[in-house]
Amino acid sequence: MPILVVGSVAYDTVETPFGQAEQVLGGSASFFSVAASFFAPVNLVAVVGEDFGEEQLAAFRDRPIDLEGLERTEGKTFQWQGKYSLDLNSRDTIRTDLNVFEFFKPKIPASYRTSEAVFLGNIDPVLQREVLDQVEGPRLVACDTMNFWIDGKPEELRELLRDVQVLLINDAEARDLSGEWNLVKAARAIREMGPRTLVVKKGEHGVLMFTGEGSFAAPAYPLEEVFDPTGAGDTFAGGFLGYLASTGEVGDPALRRAVIVGSALASFCCEAFSLDRLLTLTREEIEERYGLFQRLTRFASL
Amino acid sequence: MPILVVGSVAYDTVETPFGQAEQVLGGSASFFSVAASFFAPVNLVAVVGEDFGEEQLAAFRDRPIDLEGLERTEGKTFQWQGKYSLDLNSRDTIRTDLNVFEFFKPKIPASYRTSEAVFLGNIDPVLQREVLDQVEGPRLVACDTMNFWIDGKPEELRELLRDVQVLLINDAEARDLSGEWNLVKAARAIREMGPRTLVVKKGEHGVLMFTGEGSFAAPAYPLEEVFDPTGAGDTFAGGFLGYLASTGEVGDPALRRAVIVGSALASFCCEAFSLDRLLTLTREEIEERYGLFQRLTRFASL
Repeated sequence: MPILVVGSVAYDTVETPFGQAEQVLGGSASFFSVAASFFAPVNLVAVVGEDFGEEQLAAFRDRPIDLEGLERTEGKTFQWQGKYSLDLNSRDTIRTDLNVFEFFKPKIPASYRTSEAVFLGNIDPVLQREVLDQVEGPRLVACDTMNFWIDGKPEELRELLRDVQVLLINDAEARDLSGEWNLVKAARAIREMGPRTLVVKKGEHGVLMFTGEGSFAAPAYPLEEVFDPTGAGDTFAGGFLGYLASTGEVGDPALRRAVIVGSALASFCCEAFSLDRLLTLTREEIEERYGLFQRLTRFASL
Repeated sequence: MPILVVGSVAYDTVETPFGQAEQVLGGSASFFSVAASFFAPVNLVAVVGEDFGEEQLAAFRDRPIDLEGLERTEGKTFQWQGKYSLDLNSRDTIRTDLNVFEFFKPKIPASYRTSEAVFLGNIDPVLQREVLDQVEGPRLVACDTMNFWIDGKPEELRELLRDVQVLLINDAEARDLSGEWNLVKAARAIREMGPRTLVVKKGEHGVLMFTGEGSFAAPAYPLEEVFDPTGAGDTFAGGFLGYLASTGEVGDPALRRAVIVGSALASFCCEAFSLDRLLTLTREEIEERYGLFQRLTRFASL
């Protein structure tokens, strides 16, 4: 089942306690696409500027990632610069140059319109809606958003959520969207807005998922070196949705496995700057780490 | 296997977003003892003042908690007053009156000296050492501490830790004790100090345990109402050690089950003020919640 993803492709400059990476490939759609491509074909919808080079494109080539929807337009590619705190749990945005992303109007190639799964990356909910309307009866629609849209375009977002099956956001966003501090209450409120499945990403504290069958808790993999967490959330989403698309299942057991696949991919993402680790990753390594998640969490009956 | 516990018995005044409780039973040894008593006999070593009433003692009666080591002395019982933030993730201590606890010199009754398991609650490591030295060859020694002792009596604590098998502390304490931000690195450093098992309590984010067999991650139970988290950590420790003492096992599989038992008890603790929920709790309810932890965390192989 091919997945249509719309989001950002960017140049990131990132400083962590371990070093600095300048002008490296970033953006939600980049991390998502590469992660998802381990499991399913990806149709990428994004925009880059004239400065986006062959080297960056190479990250997408030799993978089942279709680039017909990657628009190249006059101007410069979206640039983001951030600096992480010593504990990597918070980061300051030092610079955001939207550049060509500021006027991004996603254009969906005809061949993408039959994509059966859709991931609406974190962009203006008005654009997310426009994209969704151009896809013919997708079987699975997943979505990300952020406080900027939750607070700035609440009605547009609410309208969109009615047609979303899986919402993937972090804990602060879940609280903001629902107005509830308690995540169980937040989940109930959000699931009533439309998404029957809510995946709450908690960074180093793992993931809480709420479905019609109840809740599922998965830890983050306890890495000895968290080198750079940039893109981990989008990588999680790519692994999660890629795995689901590959199985064609959307029941609670498949959703749980998808959370672990996403968590495994996100843990690899944190091991290096940019997409560096994802680009050397193999399917065998993903499966091996999935097994480590089983060892990490298993316990017997009383 | 009876457990000797040394720690505080106190009167707590607690304010949470849900209400206030005045002068209710608290203290690390209180929560620990009642939690552990579901599984194993407890020998309680603590001190109270003349104001400690029959009503408070009732919490310990009708349970396998021996009170010979609960010293009553001239003066008032330790009092603590705290106020929680709206999200219950931080709290301010408004008042600490040590009272009789200030000059606490644990006296171990002769009948307690053969206790096979020992829990050294969060008190001065010099006192923890004195208690430990009065027990004859315990099979299992577990310990709690806090930043106040990590920073204030580092050598005394280090000396103690050489004889401790299980250290139960929170994430901030693990970082402080080891000087490492990363918990995997922190665990390695701390395990080299003595405790072969390190249990890192992360509050609403659950528990990470490090043993000779690797790491184990358990979530906190996603409660819809966290009414009052006071005592949850000590309740966890009581359930954890009580369960281990009841089985006599200390291998990795038993330690994992003990983490879940402790987490189940801690989740009940948070449902009401003071020990109120623990005092109405049944063994069947604990086993039922253990089953809910299995449902919360299980996922199939790929």
